[in-house]
Amino acid sequence: VPKAPVTGPPNSLDRIVVVLVATRNSLNIGAAARAKSNFGFTQLHLVRPWDPSFQEAREEAARSAVGAGDLLASAQVFPTVAEAVAGCTLVLGTTAVTAGGRRDLLHPLDTLAESAERVREHLQNPEAQVAILFGSEKTGLSNDDLSHCHRLLRIPTREEHISMNLGQAVAICLYEFVRTGSDTEELPLDAAAPAPASAGEVERLTQMILEALQASGYIAPGAEAATEEKLRRQLRRFTLTRHDAQLALGMARQILWKLKPPDSR
Amino acid sequence: VPKAPVTGPPNSLDRIVVVLVATRNSLNIGAAARAKSNFGFTQLHLVRPWDPSFQEAREEAARSAVGAGDLLASAQVFPTVAEAVAGCTLVLGTTAVTAGGRRDLLHPLDTLAESAERVREHLQNPEAQVAILFGSEKTGLSNDDLSHCHRLLRIPTREEHISMNLGQAVAICLYEFVRTGSDTEELPLDAAAPAPASAGEVERLTQMILEALQASGYIAPGAEAATEEKLRRQLRRFTLTRHDAQLALGMARQILWKLKPPDSR
Repeated sequence: VPKAPVTGPPNSLDRIVVVLVATRNSLNIGAAARAKSNFGFTQLHLVRPWDPSFQEAREEAARSAVGAGDLLASAQVFPTVAEAVAGCTLVLGTTAVTAGGRRDLLHPLDTLAESAERVREHLQNPEAQVAILFGSEKTGLSNDDLSHCHRLLRIPTREEHISMNLGQAVAICLYEFVRTGSDTEELPLDAAAPAPASAGEVERLTQMILEALQASGYIAPGAEAATEEKLRRQLRRFTLTRHDAQLALGMARQILWKLKPPDSR
Repeated sequence: VPKAPVTGPPNSLDRIVVVLVATRNSLNIGAAARAKSNFGFTQLHLVRPWDPSFQEAREEAARSAVGAGDLLASAQVFPTVAEAVAGCTLVLGTTAVTAGGRRDLLHPLDTLAESAERVREHLQNPEAQVAILFGSEKTGLSNDDLSHCHRLLRIPTREEHISMNLGQAVAICLYEFVRTGSDTEELPLDAAAPAPASAGEVERLTQMILEALQASGYIAPGAEAATEEKLRRQLRRFTLTRHDAQLALGMARQILWKLKPPDSR
């Protein structure tokens, strides 16, 4: 007797956002939309899709997204990663690089199976929302994109040929997120858990602290981008609740006010 | 600490053959070759690839199979499913249809995860070889293709949108076959297990029995194809060892000899 497809906690798939960053080939956007529809996910965010005329790209992609036309039509386009993940409380980046790579040392790295387990646990919190970022076909996620991520995940491909096709990588990730649900008992929603901070809240905090650092003379000229990335990564390594973020925002706002010269307050 | 990718028993991936039947879009052949290379599988068999000029198709596919060019070049082309799976001892068909569908009632149906478990067990026999068949993009595997299969497997997609992109389906299946190996203890090879019959041996037996049925007047005119399919399916439901197949072949050969008129023996 075949098992019915089983999902995670109620509506948990609605709380997972697939984010495609700087995708070059519109066929891959269509393939991602199709896989999303196959496995019951609903949210697709596009950051700077490469094609200058996205409407044309949408039509081209629709051809490869058999039965997923509606999903594709409802995909939202954002100018920045920060805006695309603003509502999310856990942001995961996908990478082909293994622990040997420089970038990965800056982030904890999970296998896809471990990551799916983590996502399921995180979604027990009814206010949680998860983003999974996929970079461009050629270069993957940039360091700036990665600075918005809490953790990285990797599909276990061979060392000799690690780089996957984008549409196939999205399909495998979504399959694993659905698959995990059928293995283990469904985790209950935990209504008493404190609401986690959203990426938007953490990003506001990041920008306010940056402004304070700037005003205090902490940042050397030319080091603005590096400092911003470092701070962004660090703040995402903490597991801030919404309350934590609001408290810290209040503190930073006050410090910033004090740092400014009296006549510009 | 990330887990290293783990495979099944020694060389077991070399004993899994991906068979693409009547594939229409060469890009999907390239995508399948790329996924095979990502996960360490080596054998790709193509049955009647739709493109009349396969050489051109091969070049086109090579463009979408980044880093998998060698694998694609080594893909073998066969005119029939029977020839493509002749060396295999377990033949699995992929289907999007659920147990409600007519065709599936004729074959045992597993989820992909269950199927991967079964493949791992089967490959404990050092003489075992497994084929996984994928049908064409539009229509999937035909009834005739399915009659060569021992079992079916299904990727658990949603009822509302069950049909997957071919390249993505291949990638998910290969991921699951590799993934399973990392979960559970590696199964040892069982050198004492009797060698299973190959699909080629079972097909020879099928054809000999058919000839005998034909010669005996069992088959009504016009019912040849239906009888052949039925017989083929039935013989594959038994788990024949090589010894079983050879014994039965000898019996059928003798009966066939006896059935023929003396002057044509």
